[in-house]
Amino acid sequence: MTMLSGTNLPRVGGYNQAVVLDAIRTTGQVSRVELAALTGLTNQTVSNVVRKLLDAGLVAESGQAPSSGGKRRTLLTLRAEGACAVGVHLDPDAAVIVVVDLAGQVIGSRRLRLTDPGDPADVVDRVARTTGRLLDRSAVDRARLLGLGIAAPGPLDGTTGAVVSPPNFPGWGRVPLADMFAEATGLPVALDNDATAAAIGERWIGGADRAGSFLFLYLGTGVGAGIVLNNTVLHGDSGNAGEFGHMAVEPGDRVCHCGALDCLGPYVSPAAIIDDLFRLHGRVAADRIGLTGTPDAVHDDWKALRRAARVADADACDVVRRAARRIGEAARGAASLLDVSRVVLGGEALRGIEPIIREEVESAVNRTSVARTIRPVTVEQSVIGETVGAVGAASLVLHGNYAPGWRMLTDVTG
Amino acid sequence: MTMLSGTNLPRVGGYNQAVVLDAIRTTGQVSRVELAALTGLTNQTVSNVVRKLLDAGLVAESGQAPSSGGKRRTLLTLRAEGACAVGVHLDPDAAVIVVVDLAGQVIGSRRLRLTDPGDPADVVDRVARTTGRLLDRSAVDRARLLGLGIAAPGPLDGTTGAVVSPPNFPGWGRVPLADMFAEATGLPVALDNDATAAAIGERWIGGADRAGSFLFLYLGTGVGAGIVLNNTVLHGDSGNAGEFGHMAVEPGDRVCHCGALDCLGPYVSPAAIIDDLFRLHGRVAADRIGLTGTPDAVHDDWKALRRAARVADADACDVVRRAARRIGEAARGAASLLDVSRVVLGGEALRGIEPIIREEVESAVNRTSVARTIRPVTVEQSVIGETVGAVGAASLVLHGNYAPGWRMLTDVTG
Repeated sequence: MTMLSGTNLPRVGGYNQAVVLDAIRTTGQVSRVELAALTGLTNQTVSNVVRKLLDAGLVAESGQAPSSGGKRRTLLTLRAEGACAVGVHLDPDAAVIVVVDLAGQVIGSRRLRLTDPGDPADVVDRVARTTGRLLDRSAVDRARLLGLGIAAPGPLDGTTGAVVSPPNFPGWGRVPLADMFAEATGLPVALDNDATAAAIGERWIGGADRAGSFLFLYLGTGVGAGIVLNNTVLHGDSGNAGEFGHMAVEPGDRVCHCGALDCLGPYVSPAAIIDDLFRLHGRVAADRIGLTGTPDAVHDDWKALRRAARVADADACDVVRRAARRIGEAARGAASLLDVSRVVLGGEALRGIEPIIREEVESAVNRTSVARTIRPVTVEQSVIGETVGAVGAASLVLHGNYAPGWRMLTDVTG
Repeated sequence: MTMLSGTNLPRVGGYNQAVVLDAIRTTGQVSRVELAALTGLTNQTVSNVVRKLLDAGLVAESGQAPSSGGKRRTLLTLRAEGACAVGVHLDPDAAVIVVVDLAGQVIGSRRLRLTDPGDPADVVDRVARTTGRLLDRSAVDRARLLGLGIAAPGPLDGTTGAVVSPPNFPGWGRVPLADMFAEATGLPVALDNDATAAAIGERWIGGADRAGSFLFLYLGTGVGAGIVLNNTVLHGDSGNAGEFGHMAVEPGDRVCHCGALDCLGPYVSPAAIIDDLFRLHGRVAADRIGLTGTPDAVHDDWKALRRAARVADADACDVVRRAARRIGEAARGAASLLDVSRVVLGGEALRGIEPIIREEVESAVNRTSVARTIRPVTVEQSVIGETVGAVGAASLVLHGNYAPGWRMLTDVTG
């Protein structure tokens, strides 16, 4: 039987420490008195907690607030170099590896072409070696390195840290990625699917701009979502929350791997949109835009198509807008279901076509009567940008160590 | 800025009390030692908490466990009569009013036909008077009456306790329903939309069978969802989480009030399914089934259509199945997005056609690769049954007072 567990004092201590650190991080600079007001903790508790954070090197005193009559107040800021984490975003054609500090700044990054993505052992080995070189080059204090986060394509088996036959990695069966990376690097490892990792990155880096709830839509090789509700990421029963590709849309002739003709996923991948261009506008348009149409040229073709859409090529815009409309249909349902007032767009595949996607999503999610009369939905771009997958992966570690959350107070016992 | 607040001892006390009460409620009968094991609290804390619950009359000692060698253990059970709440489910044609005890048993109920649902003041007045008579007749100890819960059609303005132009109550603008009921009854009032109230009822009454996460699909005059994630109901940014009618499905010619042709809602209401029967199978089939097709006979026509479907009338089954398939499409997306392994079906409109809806939803949600390889999705009937809306409304009060939750430990400060 699943049962909520009670809580106790050591847990409360850890939780309050995370709450105070989060308040310092999101405010930028803040006094102890302000922290007490912000967190609802007593001045005494705040002082004790701050002392521990100073001792741990996670925050620093950074001068004094201007006097407002009484005693001048010492200000506290985050110590960015107090901790850092590695983030790895695995995509079929490349792995992006970053080192991120406690403030969310990227202090080193590498992009690694994956020549043989069909062999997980080789992928892990190459990424681990590149990570080692990147850490050396970035002069990271290993004592401050908290671990390595992986943003992987789903589906995941959340309980074992394995990915299970991800559709875009042909030949991968059940691959225990978390264990493999732990062994190859000797670091503590956190694993999540790419869209959820990206959403955690947005929450962690975005501070006050990403507080509360939002739906993060990630456009990469596939489409995925990350769901943040009341400052907490939704993982789901199996660690696969945010699967967005099976949302129903107007059916056509593209078959999803689940067998349905009305799943969003197959209509909005870069490969599908390139195919649409050929089917709807013909070879002449494709030549003008510079598409080859061969299966192994998807990356370059997609770049060319986005470039054409950015300079308002009518045919390129048309196929991008068709996909955007379907994303909008799915987003309308998801935003209504979750009742979020913010949708965030991110992912590499979005570059250059973000205005079109944004316009269609914004119009769709603001149609419903709740949106019109009670809470409009804003659609925003990722605060992190293109590397949101990798920075999100690093945030899995930072967030897992320092974000205040329910799990710090309670555990679920089996 | 939204900021998580810290926590403190009085809050921990209240939270632990709710955790212990919940454990007693869901286990049925349990000893203090077992409670400590289940909740992770010390024996001493459990003893103190149990003492308070005994003093408050919420639990009782109920004999002793069979000896297993050592000292025999006193068993604790819930004291059903220790508290109760009124639940009101408002639907366009009727209000269902129930009194529910702490164990979730209905100790009194009334169904009130709403002859003039266009006038909110009249509706509130009639429901309040009927509630008073029902409480008298049920011989409820007023000192143990916690309050009145309302399951209302959305949309809601969650911050003010108002409903805002619900589509099935023509003429209602912004109606401050919570305030109106509080004034008319003198009771503390809780308000939520019908599907969310029903989901809270399932969680509260269902105990261990409804622990964890589930998606509740409510079929009434319209279609709605209630979302329970990790034992906590999702309210959403505006109190309207679970809006299911704007999920995209295969478009047809039915226009949603949001203007779209591909919203689920307009295709699966009883009125729409009756209309489908006429359009697809003609007057002869309608006569055989006993449908009049007049707008004010929807309630009776729907009853006749469900009856025909239950005895396998091919035309009745056909139109019900078409609607069920669309519900399945939408449920597939929602279950994937939320990553829930359980979908629960409930609501008055479901009576008799539940097997068809269930079959289509079950097949749709189990199609995805996550469902096939990682976590299958079970589709179950409401444990409460037809009165799930009204019992859910009462549960708003019981759950709000006694369910352990995040809000007991922290508040969000503005």
